[in-house]
Amino acid sequence: MSKNGSISASVIKRLPRYYRFLGELKKQGVERISSRELSERMKLTASQIRQDLNCFGGFGQQGYGYHVDSLHNEIGKILGVDRNFETILIGAGNLGKAIALHINFETRGCHLTGIFDVNPKLTGQRVGDIAIMHTDEIEKFCHEHSPVVAVLCIPKANTQEIADKLVSLGVKAFWNFSHYDLSIDYEGIIVENVHLGDSLLTLTYGANIVISENEDN
Amino acid sequence: MSKNGSISASVIKRLPRYYRFLGELKKQGVERISSRELSERMKLTASQIRQDLNCFGGFGQQGYGYHVDSLHNEIGKILGVDRNFETILIGAGNLGKAIALHINFETRGCHLTGIFDVNPKLTGQRVGDIAIMHTDEIEKFCHEHSPVVAVLCIPKANTQEIADKLVSLGVKAFWNFSHYDLSIDYEGIIVENVHLGDSLLTLTYGANIVISENEDN
Repeated sequence: MSKNGSISASVIKRLPRYYRFLGELKKQGVERISSRELSERMKLTASQIRQDLNCFGGFGQQGYGYHVDSLHNEIGKILGVDRNFETILIGAGNLGKAIALHINFETRGCHLTGIFDVNPKLTGQRVGDIAIMHTDEIEKFCHEHSPVVAVLCIPKANTQEIADKLVSLGVKAFWNFSHYDLSIDYEGIIVENVHLGDSLLTLTYGANIVISENEDN
Repeated sequence: MSKNGSISASVIKRLPRYYRFLGELKKQGVERISSRELSERMKLTASQIRQDLNCFGGFGQQGYGYHVDSLHNEIGKILGVDRNFETILIGAGNLGKAIALHINFETRGCHLTGIFDVNPKLTGQRVGDIAIMHTDEIEKFCHEHSPVVAVLCIPKANTQEIADKLVSLGVKAFWNFSHYDLSIDYEGIIVENVHLGDSLLTLTYGANIVISENEDN
């Protein structure tokens, strides 16, 4: 994998989107697509697409375009969609439950097997197929299942402490929904912070610009 | 606002994070902070911070640093946190409900006043203070309330159609959680796509690299 280790972060950020678009084309029965057609659908330039996909040795053929199914599979392999990483979720509040039910972990290389909450009233309640466990059970569960990925849907104040504990128990990757920038001070630990509030503020900024321009006219 | 219209997209993307960090410092009673201290907390370089904040005329004073409260207020004004934009949410499934309950819209310039779902069984059910309305009521509601922001938590297949309708009813900004890249083919319409699945895939990619390196050793 060291070859892929050198792919720029901006290309990596676009890979899931390529994977998603190619998956949709596949579902629609499209067998091949030119970089021009793909660029129109994805609102990227054709040269951007060629450049991005060349990072992986290039799957396109001159005059033929990309073979949708192969390219989808190849990108999927690069992303690790077949890894089936054991995954746990901490914090079974509204957001945690919604993430557990709404996200298809399986198609994204993860397998959600444990959900934990500190509130004893939630213990035993089912979220989909999974019964919520008390956070006291995390250590035992990790020793038995060795989860690689943890989804954090917990309050800001507890995030660093829980993350530290999970790292010591072998967790390698955090999908962090708490309002806390989980620092990546650990060697070899991956963090994806999802700041929904920041995303809404970015939208508010844009709306403010548009509305202010309208008001000025 | 035309002055701010020229701020680069990458700076704008960082503004909500500055706003969040400064808000936390404010809560902790910190009155002023140097770019060096801020850079350590935010894991950005001090020169990056100075460059970003200079876009807005610069609020820092040589040898004094930034006045936390003023900088927080100024960035808040730029972002539009005081706008109180009337906001509706479409799709009251697990994710829609969680977003409605979990996100503090008020502190981000938005005021959630209407929640809609196509399922008549949900009509009248309360999500926090708001009773779910049937999607048939959207038109009437928009005429009466003129919402500016719409949160879309609906299946992919319906997204474009609903967005078209809402644009015709005066909505200017979409916070889109559906698995569909809402195209921005409308003049003066702002879209913030939140692809949670893509975020998870980015994490899986990173975990795959780390785990593969461990396996190689």
